[in-house]
Amino acid sequence: MTTVGCIGGGQLGRMLGLAGIPLGLSFRFLDPAADACAREVGELVVAAYDDPEGLARLARDADVVTFEFENVPVEAAREIGTLPGAASLEEGQDRLREKELFRSLGIPTARFGTLEETGLPAIVKTRRLGYDGKGQRRVTDRDAALADGELAEEVVEFDRELSIVGVRARAGEMRFWPVGENVHREGILRVTRAPAVDAPQAEAEAFCAAVMDALGHVGVLAVELFQVGDRLLANELAPRVHNTGHWTIDGNETSQFENHLRAILGLPLGPTGAGAPCVMVNLIGAAPPLAALLALPGARVHLYGKEPRPGRKVGHVTLVDPDDATVERLLALAG
Amino acid sequence: MTTVGCIGGGQLGRMLGLAGIPLGLSFRFLDPAADACAREVGELVVAAYDDPEGLARLARDADVVTFEFENVPVEAAREIGTLPGAASLEEGQDRLREKELFRSLGIPTARFGTLEETGLPAIVKTRRLGYDGKGQRRVTDRDAALADGELAEEVVEFDRELSIVGVRARAGEMRFWPVGENVHREGILRVTRAPAVDAPQAEAEAFCAAVMDALGHVGVLAVELFQVGDRLLANELAPRVHNTGHWTIDGNETSQFENHLRAILGLPLGPTGAGAPCVMVNLIGAAPPLAALLALPGARVHLYGKEPRPGRKVGHVTLVDPDDATVERLLALAG
Repeated sequence: MTTVGCIGGGQLGRMLGLAGIPLGLSFRFLDPAADACAREVGELVVAAYDDPEGLARLARDADVVTFEFENVPVEAAREIGTLPGAASLEEGQDRLREKELFRSLGIPTARFGTLEETGLPAIVKTRRLGYDGKGQRRVTDRDAALADGELAEEVVEFDRELSIVGVRARAGEMRFWPVGENVHREGILRVTRAPAVDAPQAEAEAFCAAVMDALGHVGVLAVELFQVGDRLLANELAPRVHNTGHWTIDGNETSQFENHLRAILGLPLGPTGAGAPCVMVNLIGAAPPLAALLALPGARVHLYGKEPRPGRKVGHVTLVDPDDATVERLLALAG
Repeated sequence: MTTVGCIGGGQLGRMLGLAGIPLGLSFRFLDPAADACAREVGELVVAAYDDPEGLARLARDADVVTFEFENVPVEAAREIGTLPGAASLEEGQDRLREKELFRSLGIPTARFGTLEETGLPAIVKTRRLGYDGKGQRRVTDRDAALADGELAEEVVEFDRELSIVGVRARAGEMRFWPVGENVHREGILRVTRAPAVDAPQAEAEAFCAAVMDALGHVGVLAVELFQVGDRLLANELAPRVHNTGHWTIDGNETSQFENHLRAILGLPLGPTGAGAPCVMVNLIGAAPPLAALLALPGARVHLYGKEPRPGRKVGHVTLVDPDDATVERLLALAG
């Protein structure tokens, strides 16, 4: 029996487990929360992410150790030999390094750095540990200053937000899913539509490929993008399975979760070509009644088994090739 | 959190868990084997199927209790109030009662009963506890006699074996998946192709509907059929999710596993219309190397995490809309 260790036991770990159990894999998760929702699909080691004993228990007898979020201590990842490797984590958990990486690879970004470099208005973000819009503020005051560990970014009046999710195998082979178009609300992803209409697929793939190659990345990696007219700017990278790729569970021949596992285990990658158009809607805060979701024609419901809490992602629903009325009903239900 | 109890922790229970966890369900299985393969997707209560303490532990706090095989003690099922109910079990676990039920509903069958009633040659089967061709023998000798608990069946020179899988909700609503065409070897299902070409869908649905209504069945039920020219004969029923319906995980909008759970929990049934043609191949005895299976274009691999053993079902692979060459490669790999 092949055992996969995963740092983090949230919904991404849970969906990795659901994808991997049919491949005969067994899972072990490390999470500080005793009710971490991946516990349904594997053994749960309850300990802090940087707890040496917990990490040792996670790695013991595991054939490979991966992670489901980027705020894993780099040293711990290096010691264990996670896949993706420590280099992917190191870039992915620091917004400044991430943008410098894009720049070094010739990938366009919005201006970033000090407030002098960006001009006003700017978005000021913490370099580390920010997610879902947390740790961000808009600055318009010319007397404002950056605090330690903060980074300013130019405010981009983008036409739309896109993302590309790719996977890289140990030997360097890469595959990419169709680009998705994303809508955020209050900093939290609310809807992904994939494939995005008239998406700059080739350019997005080139960005993602350059990043994965530069990092020697193994597994799934996502790049969030802004489209401004004909220009495509890289905004952020996530060295892991990504919320904007959840539609691939139902709408693609191989899901991001299955291909992540295939990649880190040295198995052949599965096909990722275009399927039917999908709409993925996040359930945020609390899930609507299950019966109401299942009554939507063709709804593929994914609940994470998490307690309701404002701003918390508690599930998502994917509609494959839906009509507009069904999408509207789902959006109304999701609230 | 809704908890489903399941008597039996084999691959059918495992696939129920994989279908139900995304709906936010939690699972508990009762199985005498400590390594029962459903343990990856829920709590495992290790006890005999008729152990009162084990059954009580299974049922405690469970919102519903179901079963994944038909040889559950009827009294235990009645006491717990399983869904499907005891009536479905009682008919499903006795080949004679099953055939008498078909007859009482006007559903054609091969001749059955004593050797005088069937004529020779005949297949003699144990009335109870037979599966995968076990407990069966062919009788050609006119001096042969039936032992206690045996049943004779006419040998039918059928053109093909088919099966229909249906689901019935608590309120009586029914849905059916496309009829599959099945190939057995040494009594064990080897291949299902669905939808079967030129299938007698309406007649098969009528048989399945009559049986489910007669039993007041709630959940999935399968009827195995022989086609002889234009005639359709019912052979066996299984009051549960069924191997010939495994292709629905990958090839249908709603799998048999998900709809079974929806039915027993009183949730709306999902659509079961025709999708792309599928070929499902069982892996029997031992699984080929995972990398070889995953290298087949479009293969959806389902391993059960079971130790190899001759004649044991250890997994299955579904190909959706495959070309003939890929089917041949899979059959060669499966051996």
